[in-house]
Amino acid sequence: MDTSNNKVITFYDIILDPTAYPISPNPWKTRYALNFAKVPYRTTWVPLAAVAETRNALQLPANRKHADGSDFPTLPIIRDPLAATTSGSEVVVGDSFDIALHLQNTYLSNNPPSSSSNDPSSAAAGQQQQQQGQLFPADGSGTVALHRAFNAFVDQIFSQYGAPLAGFYMPLDPRTAESDKAAFVRRIPGVTRWEDLEIPKGSEVRSKMLAEFESALDTKLGPCFPSPAPADGAKGGPQGTGPFMDGRQLPIYADFIVGGWLQFMRGCLPEWEDMRNKWSGGKWGRLLDALEPWADVDGREGVVPARR
Amino acid sequence: MDTSNNKVITFYDIILDPTAYPISPNPWKTRYALNFAKVPYRTTWVPLAAVAETRNALQLPANRKHADGSDFPTLPIIRDPLAATTSGSEVVVGDSFDIALHLQNTYLSNNPPSSSSNDPSSAAAGQQQQQQGQLFPADGSGTVALHRAFNAFVDQIFSQYGAPLAGFYMPLDPRTAESDKAAFVRRIPGVTRWEDLEIPKGSEVRSKMLAEFESALDTKLGPCFPSPAPADGAKGGPQGTGPFMDGRQLPIYADFIVGGWLQFMRGCLPEWEDMRNKWSGGKWGRLLDALEPWADVDGREGVVPARR
Repeated sequence: MDTSNNKVITFYDIILDPTAYPISPNPWKTRYALNFAKVPYRTTWVPLAAVAETRNALQLPANRKHADGSDFPTLPIIRDPLAATTSGSEVVVGDSFDIALHLQNTYLSNNPPSSSSNDPSSAAAGQQQQQQGQLFPADGSGTVALHRAFNAFVDQIFSQYGAPLAGFYMPLDPRTAESDKAAFVRRIPGVTRWEDLEIPKGSEVRSKMLAEFESALDTKLGPCFPSPAPADGAKGGPQGTGPFMDGRQLPIYADFIVGGWLQFMRGCLPEWEDMRNKWSGGKWGRLLDALEPWADVDGREGVVPARR
Repeated sequence: MDTSNNKVITFYDIILDPTAYPISPNPWKTRYALNFAKVPYRTTWVPLAAVAETRNALQLPANRKHADGSDFPTLPIIRDPLAATTSGSEVVVGDSFDIALHLQNTYLSNNPPSSSSNDPSSAAAGQQQQQQGQLFPADGSGTVALHRAFNAFVDQIFSQYGAPLAGFYMPLDPRTAESDKAAFVRRIPGVTRWEDLEIPKGSEVRSKMLAEFESALDTKLGPCFPSPAPADGAKGGPQGTGPFMDGRQLPIYADFIVGGWLQFMRGCLPEWEDMRNKWSGGKWGRLLDALEPWADVDGREGVVPARR
């Protein structure tokens, strides 16, 4: 959907180590969704210490709250000049779920965006995208609410186990590591020192937490995704033959929600190889692989994942 | 869908006080689904102390596990002679989610049940039901996986807060209260005395837990359901005008999942009036009311809820 005036969406992601593949889970959900919607965009890479002022500059309030009720300003944000409002200004959306809804409603639903409804090439592109799938499959009033709860559920599971097990091992730029660590500690109420975030490798507490994480994923999310042996599908599991939720051939936004967190685990979790290949019979690695067609990273040319 | 030989589904629910309206959350999910699917059924009321042997008699393994890994045999169960297998035996399903899938696949999807596909009255009934809605709205490969995660998420929230706040106040038959209490205590690993389940009314720990329950429901499930003021729908909330998830005019199984737990809260939670009318602006009471057309209780004629 390249428009005549070359307008593109601006997508704000967090940058830590510029030599490392991106890892932030919520921006990853948005990257997948942008690629899926086939909209033109450019990524603006924001240092962790500059996230709050970036939101302020765009007059966006903090989109999340810490457990103690204090503001938790984070990314992603998109600025979309293609979906101009009636007043002519660009649309600014500052939450990953709202961004997915915006992309669905503007670029994927049957209605092409009103600002370009007279553009035949845009309408044709819209029809093509329609055939290519939907972030929120529509039936009657759609699956938005089910997705909203799914997003909260997945965030809860990964925040409870994945973030504390993996966050300490984020790839940081040695030149800015101290300020990144300080910015990260400020994001977590009750924590004052970076060192307090470590759950030492090989420790008993870490082994126990890893086992709980594996079990929570397997029992709570595992049944939503296809098993390797097709025969399993006959026993109440997903019935389709595709690699995505419910055995679909194309992902929906729910697949990208899990995929965003898997990108974070791949980038940070020391035990990633086990999680990828052994947990739930290799289900999580297969899902990440199946999402690869929508995983293009803009603006970090030549930076590849440190591991698959 | 009354068949010529008057076969009906047998639905097993738990009975506590026979003078009280039923309260068990998972059987309530099934009752809603049976009424929604308009299939003929009769309820068999099983005392709590006889649940395990009922499952054993039907050769059903325990469908759930306690946190410590031990078996947790519970209800509902259905026996469905209308959906006979090729060997001619009835279909027995022993888990609320699997029952909903069975009802969807047998009575609500486009395919009428194979055992009665030559019965024109059955096919006509199937078409009528098709127009009346679906438990799992189908688009492509359906919404089963999203529902599966939603069920786990809702069970988790209500089990964490609602069950401990309300379970102690279950209506019991004075004649069997001691054995019911003993059976209930056996269902909870680590608990040996009924009295240990009390979280005293008016206590600080109870107030704090109620506030956390209200907040968890509001933040995690609240956005899935319509707000009272239609104007709220414009701000990312559900866009339809109906009372159900995503503003639908007809419920889907996700609505019944929450409704099943609301029936439990109505029957047991001392603070129900607040939960019904004040929490989330009265959202939970409105949902329970909207589900009333599918709340008929079979086999307890004359027994009405102690409170609305």
